[in-house]
Amino acid sequence: MLVGALVINVFLQHTNLSRIGFRDALLFATLTWALTGVLGAFPVMLVTGVSFTDAVFESVSALTTTGATILTGLDAMPKSFLMYRQFLQWMGGLGVVIFVVAVLPMLNVGGMRLLKAETPGPIKDDKLSPRIANTAHYLWFIYLLITLLCALAYYVGGMDAFDAIAHSLSTVSTGGFSTHDDSMWHFQSHTLLAISNLFMLLGAISFALHFRVLNGRSPRLYWRDEETRIFLLIVIGLSLLLSLYLLTKQRYGTWESLSFAAFHVVSFITSTGFGAADLASWPPASGLFLVICAYLGGCAGSTAGGNKIIRDIITFKVIRREMQQLIHPRAILPVRYQGNEVANDVRDAVMGFMSFAAGSSLVLTLLLMLTGLDFWSSFTAVAACINVLGPGFGEVGSNFIPVSDSGIWLLSGAMILGRLEYFTVLALFLPMFWRR
Amino acid sequence: MLVGALVINVFLQHTNLSRIGFRDALLFATLTWALTGVLGAFPVMLVTGVSFTDAVFESVSALTTTGATILTGLDAMPKSFLMYRQFLQWMGGLGVVIFVVAVLPMLNVGGMRLLKAETPGPIKDDKLSPRIANTAHYLWFIYLLITLLCALAYYVGGMDAFDAIAHSLSTVSTGGFSTHDDSMWHFQSHTLLAISNLFMLLGAISFALHFRVLNGRSPRLYWRDEETRIFLLIVIGLSLLLSLYLLTKQRYGTWESLSFAAFHVVSFITSTGFGAADLASWPPASGLFLVICAYLGGCAGSTAGGNKIIRDIITFKVIRREMQQLIHPRAILPVRYQGNEVANDVRDAVMGFMSFAAGSSLVLTLLLMLTGLDFWSSFTAVAACINVLGPGFGEVGSNFIPVSDSGIWLLSGAMILGRLEYFTVLALFLPMFWRR
Ligand SMILES: [K+]
Ligand SMILES: [K+]
Repeated sequence: MLVGALVINVFLQHTNLSRIGFRDALLFATLTWALTGVLGAFPVMLVTGVSFTDAVFESVSALTTTGATILTGLDAMPKSFLMYRQFLQWMGGLGVVIFVVAVLPMLNVGGMRLLKAETPGPIKDDKLSPRIANTAHYLWFIYLLITLLCALAYYVGGMDAFDAIAHSLSTVSTGGFSTHDDSMWHFQSHTLLAISNLFMLLGAISFALHFRVLNGRSPRLYWRDEETRIFLLIVIGLSLLLSLYLLTKQRYGTWESLSFAAFHVVSFITSTGFGAADLASWPPASGLFLVICAYLGGCAGSTAGGNKIIRDIITFKVIRREMQQLIHPRAILPVRYQGNEVANDVRDAVMGFMSFAAGSSLVLTLLLMLTGLDFWSSFTAVAACINVLGPGFGEVGSNFIPVSDSGIWLLSGAMILGRLEYFTVLALFLPMFWRR
Repeated sequence: MLVGALVINVFLQHTNLSRIGFRDALLFATLTWALTGVLGAFPVMLVTGVSFTDAVFESVSALTTTGATILTGLDAMPKSFLMYRQFLQWMGGLGVVIFVVAVLPMLNVGGMRLLKAETPGPIKDDKLSPRIANTAHYLWFIYLLITLLCALAYYVGGMDAFDAIAHSLSTVSTGGFSTHDDSMWHFQSHTLLAISNLFMLLGAISFALHFRVLNGRSPRLYWRDEETRIFLLIVIGLSLLLSLYLLTKQRYGTWESLSFAAFHVVSFITSTGFGAADLASWPPASGLFLVICAYLGGCAGSTAGGNKIIRDIITFKVIRREMQQLIHPRAILPVRYQGNEVANDVRDAVMGFMSFAAGSSLVLTLLLMLTGLDFWSSFTAVAACINVLGPGFGEVGSNFIPVSDSGIWLLSGAMILGRLEYFTVLALFLPMFWRR
């Protein structure tokens, strides 16, 4: 049961002891998720009797905080096994936080050098290992604290102690696993949806920022951070849009429309993937709307997946600048983020990431269609895995059982690819990586 | 019948007489296509009796060389009207060639400053109007020459004179309109498909390069040009892949698989959109495969749509460089095209273009779904219009009649947006454009 935890611990301790290079960090990150994924699969096989392929999928899905499942009939399963799944997600989320706050900014994966100055901890130099160890120390505490508050809030909101703890583990990690087939609507409580919204959002905001807020005792820092501010405005805007659409379709009353719309926008944009309303019965356009939310993603430095709001902002500003440049061809128009000019190499990395996300989604969708799924199911399955979101639509609307074995392996790979922000994994496949 | 020709002529003469600024060029380009689109619609209304909305769609589809149609029963229509449609495409194609060879590189729309040094004509300075007039002079001749050769080849290949001329007009312009409902398979000749392949490819290669080849009497220049070389290699590679797939599905014999696969890959990647095989009966994955071809696009400086091979190349190189940079964080790794380093602002413009193409496709698909189409039909309809390709799949597999009026207006806008490479049109919507 603690296999995943053990391996991550070994990884952390290793980084504590020696000074690792950038190349090692890339290899370590990918190997950690791939190997713990395989190790974590054995309990799944033993308890549920699914195939090795499916068990690896379930385990990778947990550790990457995706939350896509090949299981059904959760309510009848042993509670210890259910808690094991939730705990895998929580450990995965912790690993992600350390990876995205301590490792990504140092390597400038997908332009994340942007966040380097904001990494907490006393050491600001380029040595990777003391930095990782120090940062991990702070992050672990904050991650635990938010989880405890979440469990408490769920308990007060009406869950029993088991469910409160189980769901807190998959909320703060934006993992989205549940102990019930009906996910968050098992409890049929809009209060619990609101509590879940709050903690999904906290899980999708940079943990380095949480640290600074806690350290400075100043919640205003959330609003002063450009990414978090835009993130919250986007969440509010998209929730209102979706609830208006649901109202015109007269599916729910005003209040219910607003609650369901906000919950699903938050669940998808934070890549948590909890369910509540019967999405299959919603008009088809709302499905694509939610998938687009998942591509937007949460804030960098959090457990959320997707392209990340910081990249959305920079992409938006680069595109706007291109149009302005057409009007004033000789003007020098810098792209700024949080008041500072964004460097060339950061822009390249961000834009390369966005293009790669778009292109690889199309190609993976094509490959998944070759395994026999239709276009809508393939497209949403890929979006669910590459953005570590979890739920798909169509044939994969309730679980991933309809996907063939080769499709399942493809999607397991897609989860690791998306979780480690593409380039971390793909660099290993360049011949250059293995030279010298 | 000559309304479109007249307006484009007025535009050309105007540019001949006065010195126009960059802003004027943006406004002119968009207004030219929008206004000729409306003017060209009247003959369509008069002859076929369709609504104004549908007639504008048909006319814009012709002038942007898209070739999507809201008409059916072409074979029974007056020959003069059919030739009018073909001629609109040919004029549209000529307008496009002048726009992409003379205007885009000067404005650096989507990074096209890359091609500035290669624009033919004696004047290489920054004055827009003498440049446009001079360049237009050379391009017009080459465009006409290739069209005549194409008509001759079709005639020798077995078409009657009317069809040979009609189809040459929509082949070189990569427009894709046909005088028959069965499109290119009306003639049931693999020889004609092969001839069509050759001239679609010529239409999708830079006309500035055609000029240099003709001027230097050196066909080797095609192979020495990085974009053209990669384009031809991609066409060969994708054709082989698709024919292998068709062979495994045992739909056709070896030779027929190869012919149909090559024809459809060429038809889609050059954004011509001619049809031959019954695509609706092909396995669904091949549909997405062809749509991905359309997004790749032809060469810049041609009549082809899509993202363009030059941008695909630069995007690929930026992404590869990001991975290499992870392995060697301190190395300085330039991105080169045709042996020269690609400047920062060109990279930004290219990558901004790619991200915008991906994002706007998703949003337009969502909007089209709101008008009642399913996901597959909406996605392929948007791809067909934004890449000026023409044919869609699903509900819009044979024509665009199933699309509602609001959807038709949306797609008419999408064709102009894609044809003018997004930024040209969108710059007009910035408040900055109208200041001073
Ligand atoms: K998730
Ligand atoms: K076309």
